[in-house]
Amino acid sequence: MPTDTPQPAFVLVRPQMGENIGASARAMWNFGLDRMRLVAPRDGWPNPKAVAMSSGAGRLLDEAQHVKTVAEAVADSHFVLATTARPRGLTKPVYTPERAMELAREKIAAGQKVAVLFGPERAGMENEDIAHASAIVSVPVNPEFASLNLAQCVLLMAYEWGRQSLDAVPETVELAGGDWANGQEIEALARHYEDRLEEAGFFFPDHKAPGMKINLRNLWSRMPLTRADVQMLHGILRQMVRWKNRTD
Amino acid sequence: MPTDTPQPAFVLVRPQMGENIGASARAMWNFGLDRMRLVAPRDGWPNPKAVAMSSGAGRLLDEAQHVKTVAEAVADSHFVLATTARPRGLTKPVYTPERAMELAREKIAAGQKVAVLFGPERAGMENEDIAHASAIVSVPVNPEFASLNLAQCVLLMAYEWGRQSLDAVPETVELAGGDWANGQEIEALARHYEDRLEEAGFFFPDHKAPGMKINLRNLWSRMPLTRADVQMLHGILRQMVRWKNRTD
Repeated sequence: MPTDTPQPAFVLVRPQMGENIGASARAMWNFGLDRMRLVAPRDGWPNPKAVAMSSGAGRLLDEAQHVKTVAEAVADSHFVLATTARPRGLTKPVYTPERAMELAREKIAAGQKVAVLFGPERAGMENEDIAHASAIVSVPVNPEFASLNLAQCVLLMAYEWGRQSLDAVPETVELAGGDWANGQEIEALARHYEDRLEEAGFFFPDHKAPGMKINLRNLWSRMPLTRADVQMLHGILRQMVRWKNRTD
Repeated sequence: MPTDTPQPAFVLVRPQMGENIGASARAMWNFGLDRMRLVAPRDGWPNPKAVAMSSGAGRLLDEAQHVKTVAEAVADSHFVLATTARPRGLTKPVYTPERAMELAREKIAAGQKVAVLFGPERAGMENEDIAHASAIVSVPVNPEFASLNLAQCVLLMAYEWGRQSLDAVPETVELAGGDWANGQEIEALARHYEDRLEEAGFFFPDHKAPGMKINLRNLWSRMPLTRADVQMLHGILRQMVRWKNRTD
């Protein structure tokens, strides 16, 4: 069963290699998309090479709609985007993937159905395919070198879809060491270092000592230290003192 | 000749298949990136399979820096991002590709050098590789299905770099202490502490030593250290050793 998440359908138009169909399914499912449609795949359907390449995303192939024409593939769609690198001599808006997926979200949120067309590997889509589209999506590649293959193009569009839905996800810091140290713990650390280093004769010459102490304290308070970090830094200093005493 | 455009270096860490190195070069060059570094590729270097797969982007392979260790690969870098899907038990900021490339742009605009690490195909990076990084980048894939391969991950990061416009105004951090420390300086600091603390008997008991060393290294690479901070941290350690020797 497809997921319930409202999403665009990705339509592969006359794809040639089964491997690319399987790789496209994987690319889609990486970003939670599972509505694939296939228009007249060259080697017929189902295709064992597509299945072999789709491992883990085979469900998308089982559930893919298999149709003969682009017109059928987009029959239920209100907004159709055609991905193509080349200018086509057709009057259409041309969007970046970012803008295209923003529009797709808006349309879908308003209850419309959206389809994204991807052309055959070598030749790309014909103008009569593109004529079914509301707009063109063009990935802004290096003008000296544009070599995206079918599954890569699917991957970038799926990524854009996923990226925008994750806008609200906050940045996280992976905390293996437990909690962040609080001000009191940082203060104790600063005092420990200051006291031992005073004994050790670190703050020298005298007239530079106040500035050195401020710099050291500023270092500890500026650093994003966890409690585990603070413990390690205490431990380092204690061990250095033990080492000193051991050799007395 | 590499392009003049300031940009991050993409570092492939112990890549296995030559084909993936070639495909990564193509993925980079699609978005105008041409600084590749290779750490200990499994099948040696140069690799004819990489060349065969790189067609049109072969220059990136010719010019790629080939080194033995992650430390060498990031020696000139001030800000190092590690792409990894899995939580690692290391305390580091975790960014989306979008946020990571925003930060990369800001750092580069401020004159810093940035490197992005990509792990080997199957196993991904080891914690000791990731310990060289300032932060983690994690592509927000479907939690039920994460199957991005090496070249796809490179493609998404390169796309993110290209997607973001160059005229974004960089935020900068006010630097009273002079320049930021680079990877080589952080490495020297990490080695200094590791060596002295080894002598001092800090890494005890033996079976915990490797984990303690990784945590310590991770601490240095995670901290936003200036050159002045690094000098102070060296100075602290040297003074503790002097103190110890003085009382012999």
